[in-house]
Amino acid sequence: MSEATTTDLYEVTMALSYLREGMTGPATFSLFVRDLPPERGFLVAAGLDSALDYLSHLRVGPEDVEDFAAALHRPADELLPLRGLEFTGRVRAVPEGRIVLAGEPLLEVTAPLPEAQLVETYVLNRLGHQTLIASKAARCVLAADGRPVVDFSLRRTHGPQAGFQAARLGALVGFAGTSNVAAAAATGVPAVGTMAHSYVEAFPGEEEAFRAFARTHPGPLTLLVDTYDTEAGVRVAARVLRDLGRGPGSAVRLDSGDLGALAVRARALLDEAGLPDVRIIASGGLDAYAVDDLVRSRAPIDVFAVGTRVGVSADAPYLDSAYKMVEYDGRPVMKLSSAKVTAPGPKQVFRRPGCADVIALADERPPGDGTPLLETVMTGGRRTGERPTLDDGRARFAADLAGLPAAARRVRAPVAPRATVSGRLAALAADVRRRIDERMPAAGPRPSRAASAACGPLRPAAHRPVSR
Amino acid sequence: MSEATTTDLYEVTMALSYLREGMTGPATFSLFVRDLPPERGFLVAAGLDSALDYLSHLRVGPEDVEDFAAALHRPADELLPLRGLEFTGRVRAVPEGRIVLAGEPLLEVTAPLPEAQLVETYVLNRLGHQTLIASKAARCVLAADGRPVVDFSLRRTHGPQAGFQAARLGALVGFAGTSNVAAAAATGVPAVGTMAHSYVEAFPGEEEAFRAFARTHPGPLTLLVDTYDTEAGVRVAARVLRDLGRGPGSAVRLDSGDLGALAVRARALLDEAGLPDVRIIASGGLDAYAVDDLVRSRAPIDVFAVGTRVGVSADAPYLDSAYKMVEYDGRPVMKLSSAKVTAPGPKQVFRRPGCADVIALADERPPGDGTPLLETVMTGGRRTGERPTLDDGRARFAADLAGLPAAARRVRAPVAPRATVSGRLAALAADVRRRIDERMPAAGPRPSRAASAACGPLRPAAHRPVSR
Repeated sequence: MSEATTTDLYEVTMALSYLREGMTGPATFSLFVRDLPPERGFLVAAGLDSALDYLSHLRVGPEDVEDFAAALHRPADELLPLRGLEFTGRVRAVPEGRIVLAGEPLLEVTAPLPEAQLVETYVLNRLGHQTLIASKAARCVLAADGRPVVDFSLRRTHGPQAGFQAARLGALVGFAGTSNVAAAAATGVPAVGTMAHSYVEAFPGEEEAFRAFARTHPGPLTLLVDTYDTEAGVRVAARVLRDLGRGPGSAVRLDSGDLGALAVRARALLDEAGLPDVRIIASGGLDAYAVDDLVRSRAPIDVFAVGTRVGVSADAPYLDSAYKMVEYDGRPVMKLSSAKVTAPGPKQVFRRPGCADVIALADERPPGDGTPLLETVMTGGRRTGERPTLDDGRARFAADLAGLPAAARRVRAPVAPRATVSGRLAALAADVRRRIDERMPAAGPRPSRAASAACGPLRPAAHRPVSR
Repeated sequence: MSEATTTDLYEVTMALSYLREGMTGPATFSLFVRDLPPERGFLVAAGLDSALDYLSHLRVGPEDVEDFAAALHRPADELLPLRGLEFTGRVRAVPEGRIVLAGEPLLEVTAPLPEAQLVETYVLNRLGHQTLIASKAARCVLAADGRPVVDFSLRRTHGPQAGFQAARLGALVGFAGTSNVAAAAATGVPAVGTMAHSYVEAFPGEEEAFRAFARTHPGPLTLLVDTYDTEAGVRVAARVLRDLGRGPGSAVRLDSGDLGALAVRARALLDEAGLPDVRIIASGGLDAYAVDDLVRSRAPIDVFAVGTRVGVSADAPYLDSAYKMVEYDGRPVMKLSSAKVTAPGPKQVFRRPGCADVIALADERPPGDGTPLLETVMTGGRRTGERPTLDDGRARFAADLAGLPAAARRVRAPVAPRATVSGRLAALAADVRRRIDERMPAAGPRPSRAASAACGPLRPAAHRPVSR
């Protein structure tokens, strides 16, 4: 499929109308997450590289125009203004790996209105999905409290591409490995994994299976010990590892049952067998909650393998993301509602110690102890710098995490810091709101067309104004 | 990324060991969903085409071997047995669109053991994801009770490829359209969608926006009426549609607030304006539950647009899928546990009236009123027939749905039919279980290696035997 057509049709109908109406002035759209999902203390910005790849390659070709025309049941020549359209704009964004909070722009696009509109769906998809998964994975790292976490999610993600991202994003937030060979090869993350139950089942017994595995695979082994009876399996594994002198660096994997109790028993058996350095890996339906329970119970588990629940962010499988116009043709644009406000104008976020962030206008100077989160990553439709590496993102996440308040790091009932709004932004928002209230009271009759037009720079008002 | 490396590393380590050990006899693996998620009365089989594409193109090339070798920290020449490996096996599967139940094989692979093992991860991913989404989307169609449902999910799915599948799978179960242009072009499903709030906001007022839109787009219009005040928006839309003579086929879209109450008001306003054939489209956080509520309250909504919650199956974002060895080298293989049994041997499912399905052995004759669900779709690693069309799948789903009991179709608290097991399969399972119990009691000490080997054909026993 063409990436130009990987969009909602309405982006096309709007872009075409803007082109026909000559509405090609610069517009700024801001992409942000309105509210964090339950049980999240922070988000980890991710997906920017995918979005920039799309923006830098976007070009509406003749075949795309034909697809658009077919979708609209119109002759292709009526859609000619779209042909050759590329993204020529500027993008400011939070680099991948940085911690962000509710309401903070992850990305701002400034481009001729048709371009800025056309890219909405794709950019929302990429940043939303990847930020979702990175944020979920980060909780596992926190829960594991220093123990390695590895990704086993590929079999249950929403397609193989989502599996690739789950592996990559786990690595971004500090996972020690992934079962996904393609992702390991592409990212340099260690690949992990040894045997399934079916392997053990294919042999007359566990010992035959483990010895056969050792014949093929030199070096440390990870032996799956719960195919029949876990304690017996640990004993067999210990015997094989000892006989072969393969203890150092090796491990047993527990994939079912009461992992905490079984880990205690396995540790005792391995120690009794003179194998204190054989590690214990736990897997099977784990996520941050389960890892947290195991760590708090002091289960002697050395490595946690997380899969399905992390790869799909099972407890919160989407973000409340939005892509809102905040400026058009030099005029701040604002959305009001009884519940929430989209603050007007292009913005910057200043990170202050303890994630006491300030959301400000883009041209404000930072507070003395603040540093800007959004960086210019694209101008004139081209990337401004090198493609960032995974290590760059990892370092950013580690640094931001170190400054995150303890209450936000908790796995259960975390308290997310809330950004405040700068004085100038608050004043602008109040000014816009006042002018809207004067001319366009949300609960009253609609103003006359003339009055509405007169407040041009300061509409739009009161989107979703009253919940009735 | 190569599809050969889009796999868990352990599939590779196992396949290599099997090749080195000469364990290349035919193995049958069965892919099924152990239990349905909460609030599901049935599943809709989907994803087979993606899986068959993968199987028919799979070939472990030199670069794949290098990636495998790097993952294992071994020289590539030690992995030479994997080089050139292709899938040469046979696949029997439930065609896309058919309704399936818990425990029923969606697909069975019979191939040399290394091949049958290597493909596990990818095939689980594809069938699991697509069956998940098709099953979720089907509930929306049931909830809408004959009213059209369209897909708006692309911005929130787990990557653009998942968005494509959401659109395609919605169409499979009867959606009337999708906002996703690429999916519409590829599948022939109608594309839908007209304007966002940002479009209305870009003009001095709603009327200017609607009139500009009408200038660019001839024919029926869908006007978004809730940017400022919904009732006022409906009045403006009615005026514009009437003035321009564009009522027939046109619609207004409600995207926020109390959709039921707003639809009643909008319907009255449109009727008063002499526009009884202007339809009302509702969107905004809808899924089967919300659609069900609106339909039961007799809200005058003509079309439901569902998005995020359906595209990610938000209430149950993964299936409890499994890919289990059921036969190796002519011997039935079985997994026992205190909670659940993997029945041995290659299987067939016979659909009887009312989804009173019987799971039987593959070589059994159907009961008089039963027809087989699994069909041979690949032999010798090649597809046996034409690539099925979306229309084929649609027809299958519609036919199966017509035979589904009313209790299984309910949106809330559905009761899923349970398949029964044929006499022969039950007898084989009992025989295998008895022999395992004799030789390998789950709670007792492990049998001697000789005893274990002697029960060769009938192990493996008691995987996940005791929950402690």
